[in-house]
Amino acid sequence: MFFLFIGASDVCKIPGISAAGANPAVIPFTAAADADVLYYGRPRVVDAVPVDPEGHPTPALITRAAWEMARFPFIVVRCGSYLPPACPHVDLKCDPGGDPSLVSAVPNAREVFDAACELGRSMGGMKEPYVIGESVPGGTTTALMVLRSLGVEGMVSSAGPLNPINLKETIWQKGCSRCGGGFGAFRDDPLKAVREMGDPMQAAVAGFVFGLPRDARVVLAGGTQMLAVLAVLRAMGWDGKVVVATTKYVAQDRSCAFLEMASSLGAEPYAAPLDFSRSPHKGLADYEKGYVKEGVGAGGAFWYARELGVSVEKLCGKVEEIYSLMMGFSG
Amino acid sequence: MFFLFIGASDVCKIPGISAAGANPAVIPFTAAADADVLYYGRPRVVDAVPVDPEGHPTPALITRAAWEMARFPFIVVRCGSYLPPACPHVDLKCDPGGDPSLVSAVPNAREVFDAACELGRSMGGMKEPYVIGESVPGGTTTALMVLRSLGVEGMVSSAGPLNPINLKETIWQKGCSRCGGGFGAFRDDPLKAVREMGDPMQAAVAGFVFGLPRDARVVLAGGTQMLAVLAVLRAMGWDGKVVVATTKYVAQDRSCAFLEMASSLGAEPYAAPLDFSRSPHKGLADYEKGYVKEGVGAGGAFWYARELGVSVEKLCGKVEEIYSLMMGFSG
Repeated sequence: MFFLFIGASDVCKIPGISAAGANPAVIPFTAAADADVLYYGRPRVVDAVPVDPEGHPTPALITRAAWEMARFPFIVVRCGSYLPPACPHVDLKCDPGGDPSLVSAVPNAREVFDAACELGRSMGGMKEPYVIGESVPGGTTTALMVLRSLGVEGMVSSAGPLNPINLKETIWQKGCSRCGGGFGAFRDDPLKAVREMGDPMQAAVAGFVFGLPRDARVVLAGGTQMLAVLAVLRAMGWDGKVVVATTKYVAQDRSCAFLEMASSLGAEPYAAPLDFSRSPHKGLADYEKGYVKEGVGAGGAFWYARELGVSVEKLCGKVEEIYSLMMGFSG
Repeated sequence: MFFLFIGASDVCKIPGISAAGANPAVIPFTAAADADVLYYGRPRVVDAVPVDPEGHPTPALITRAAWEMARFPFIVVRCGSYLPPACPHVDLKCDPGGDPSLVSAVPNAREVFDAACELGRSMGGMKEPYVIGESVPGGTTTALMVLRSLGVEGMVSSAGPLNPINLKETIWQKGCSRCGGGFGAFRDDPLKAVREMGDPMQAAVAGFVFGLPRDARVVLAGGTQMLAVLAVLRAMGWDGKVVVATTKYVAQDRSCAFLEMASSLGAEPYAAPLDFSRSPHKGLADYEKGYVKEGVGAGGAFWYARELGVSVEKLCGKVEEIYSLMMGFSG
């Protein structure tokens, strides 16, 4: 089963940090709109397809395409998105994450973890794999903060070809000053790392996985944001087997260290071989240049559809088709 | 996977109609408390175990016992319960059903059906069976109203040894006068039967099943309330295979016509062979006298646990154990 956890971090409101949402006014809608795209094939909470400032479409359409081809079961779990999606969902009733350079990011990280842990406990026992994706604008920054707080080396990814590394460093430094943090400082208290420096999605997904039976087949569907979740789990002593499934755009991103970090965290990496290099649509073709890259569990949904026997060609073709429909192209 | 749909009908506020809740003031909590018992082994929205006026415990403890022994995946879906449960759940955001003798019971039955249908669509594709239970105080009366409106003969069950048949007849007559109903009157418009005479759980479960792939393995976990749902589905042309799993207390209840109705609706019946005849606890032993009988998907949860290899003896023993714990018995 595919689970989409939708959350938020006020980090996304820092100018220059997030590529999700065409402009800051739209960012609050992004995660909810992504859930609706997965669910209905189009957003319902807003009347526009989520795009980045340059018009590149949300990776939710890759996730949607994978679902249309493979029809795997899925559900949306809200963990602090600014708005609820229109589609049915489980609501863990938590707040959006605060900006860790200013405040404790997730003051009730333990409660969020526990609630999600109970959800994992109740949803455990399926024969299906548990493929878990996320949509959290600003989430690669909070991933960096948590990975470093837990002593994991390496730069995180970003949703554009130019990773705003300097800005992420500044937020890291400010956060450390605020709460006495530092590299490896919260290694012995991973939920403190989330509370001070993370976002509610991290607490929720870590709790959910922790609640599953230890032999559940877990696929964390994302790039460096899911590595941050895995770092939390490992620091808590969770020793389950896990695949971290992302797209080739993250795995090949030389500004980040996905494969090295996955290896150091004991995860089996998967890089979805998406290929839009011959797409007639600039918005998609630009994925090959490093725009968007990943999100909404795109890489893991692709993994799941492949697992269910759908070919790479059919998946990429379906993405093109949905994109054309969503954007109103005639072709 | 086990799904517990929790709803409500204002019918339960008519004195003498519902055995759920020790007194009318507690009835609003019943469905939510049942969900919490399944989830946590004890209620959280109130500080007391749901019991009927004579102290017989909720069948949720049978459902909980089945889960503890078999650890099948489950989730709670709220469809109009007076209160939300404390446990994680999907909320279909509908209102409690009105009293059909006074008003249209579910004015937005179509919207509830559609939302649940979308949930079924997204949750489809699992290898597990779909075992679907309910908790709706007053729900056997609305079941009768809908079954008759759709032209299905037979009396429904009740949650006590004395079925308040005369009272149910009175409500039926008043409802028919109000909306121009009658036996078979809404046969061609089953959602009108639910809208005028039913409850939101019926719309929700029918929609959910309708949204599943047609080859899904569906087990409706309940007695005559689930037959009402099946009658709605059949009247809509749904021709899927289905088991209706209840307890032996409903199947053997001579005041109702469970087996005959199941047969006429093309369902395979299952009657969980519960046996509390030698229970040291009067509350449980009285199940053998026709108290409570069924609810919270108890019969279907029992079916599911048996399917997963748990013995009848172990299941009944676990019910005794949980009951002792819940009620604070030392033994």
